[in-house]
Amino acid sequence: MTVYLVGAGPGDPDLLTLRGAAVLGRAEVVLYDRLVAPVLLDLAPPGALRVDVGKVPGRPGDQDGINRLLVEHGATGRPVVRLKGGDPFVFGRGGEEAEALRAAGVPYEVVPGVSSAFAVPASAGIPVTHRGVSTSVTVVTGRVGDGPSDTGIDWAALAPLGARGTLVVLMGMASRAEIAAGLLGGGLPATTPVAVVHWGTTARQRVVRSTLGGLVDVDLAAPATIVVGDVAAVDLGSTAPGDPG
Amino acid sequence: MTVYLVGAGPGDPDLLTLRGAAVLGRAEVVLYDRLVAPVLLDLAPPGALRVDVGKVPGRPGDQDGINRLLVEHGATGRPVVRLKGGDPFVFGRGGEEAEALRAAGVPYEVVPGVSSAFAVPASAGIPVTHRGVSTSVTVVTGRVGDGPSDTGIDWAALAPLGARGTLVVLMGMASRAEIAAGLLGGGLPATTPVAVVHWGTTARQRVVRSTLGGLVDVDLAAPATIVVGDVAAVDLGSTAPGDPG
Repeated sequence: MTVYLVGAGPGDPDLLTLRGAAVLGRAEVVLYDRLVAPVLLDLAPPGALRVDVGKVPGRPGDQDGINRLLVEHGATGRPVVRLKGGDPFVFGRGGEEAEALRAAGVPYEVVPGVSSAFAVPASAGIPVTHRGVSTSVTVVTGRVGDGPSDTGIDWAALAPLGARGTLVVLMGMASRAEIAAGLLGGGLPATTPVAVVHWGTTARQRVVRSTLGGLVDVDLAAPATIVVGDVAAVDLGSTAPGDPG
Repeated sequence: MTVYLVGAGPGDPDLLTLRGAAVLGRAEVVLYDRLVAPVLLDLAPPGALRVDVGKVPGRPGDQDGINRLLVEHGATGRPVVRLKGGDPFVFGRGGEEAEALRAAGVPYEVVPGVSSAFAVPASAGIPVTHRGVSTSVTVVTGRVGDGPSDTGIDWAALAPLGARGTLVVLMGMASRAEIAAGLLGGGLPATTPVAVVHWGTTARQRVVRSTLGGLVDVDLAAPATIVVGDVAAVDLGSTAPGDPG
């Protein structure tokens, strides 16, 4: 095994898995994303090569370049960790990286991570499913392709999910006008509860509770997670470090 | 802080989080579910009280009894860990436990876990989202309430999600006839790829690839995760321990 595609979790470094910590501890190369907690890089041996392959929002991400780097380092046979925010297979493009490695004949292992889609709402006191309130949770991304808007997603078609269950939108703040318009057009009431969680699970966490009608006026920058549906009005208490709750 | 609602992850004990391991390491009481890996209980101090509160399938779960136990032990001020399979807030009834603790004035903290909904498919080589294949993932449970069938879920309404994205059904094998009939009735083609993963992420993992039309004939017992949608035909390689995949 040479390349580990590791989910770093939602932000709080203590939400890394034991397996993730173990493979980081013997990595000789770490290729990491922009949003990964810097302290996690300290888990790698002092002499390990650390490469920031983070993509800058609004600039075309160079996924092909990352794939090439992974294959190059992996082909040396040295243990390589690709450290990604959240979970590699939940809008993390881990599937593409796995395909590139497989095509090149480089062995790899996927180490799942705690997904921001579930843990960020939890950190704000919101259970994504809740008896009598929500019996499904749908996760989508507000940023498809490399641009900040025009997601290409049929938001109106997702509206029924927000009525009966929970809709979690990752990376959606730049597209929030489009998202809200689509969901309203699909029949979701303007009074539908919405919560936006900025830097969830970290000491920088901020939460704004609003409604679908008010989403466009929520003034929180990326990284942020948007929760739509009745659970967004539930508050079981914040558990972010330093958050008074 | 006295009670920790900890997600144990999908099965593989190495997928516990660092935070989960830390609070287990100083627990004086551990209330654990049936599906939690036994080796995780060894992380608690030797003298800790270990209580199996696992619910037996097909028998009414005594959630009220669990809530009472949590409150009783939590009220003593001793560190208590409630160890739950997957993530506490993803069909884990963690929200109800949090509400009971809050109502009783017992402080608690939620420690998210790696959800089976994402990690079990990953362990079978299936990315729940994949560029060009799936741009959303919806998670539902096939077991609502305490009975094995009659989920009360409008499966036909979920059919469009399986066409455009991925549908993950937890605890759905006992209801697979109802699920398949509903999704077919909702317009999802019988040829839609389906994968069923039994004991995902563990050495007992078994994977059956089928189609929506063939789901009813898949012969795998619980615990199993059902994946519906085009990603169910993707195979990036199994990563379960001992799986030759």
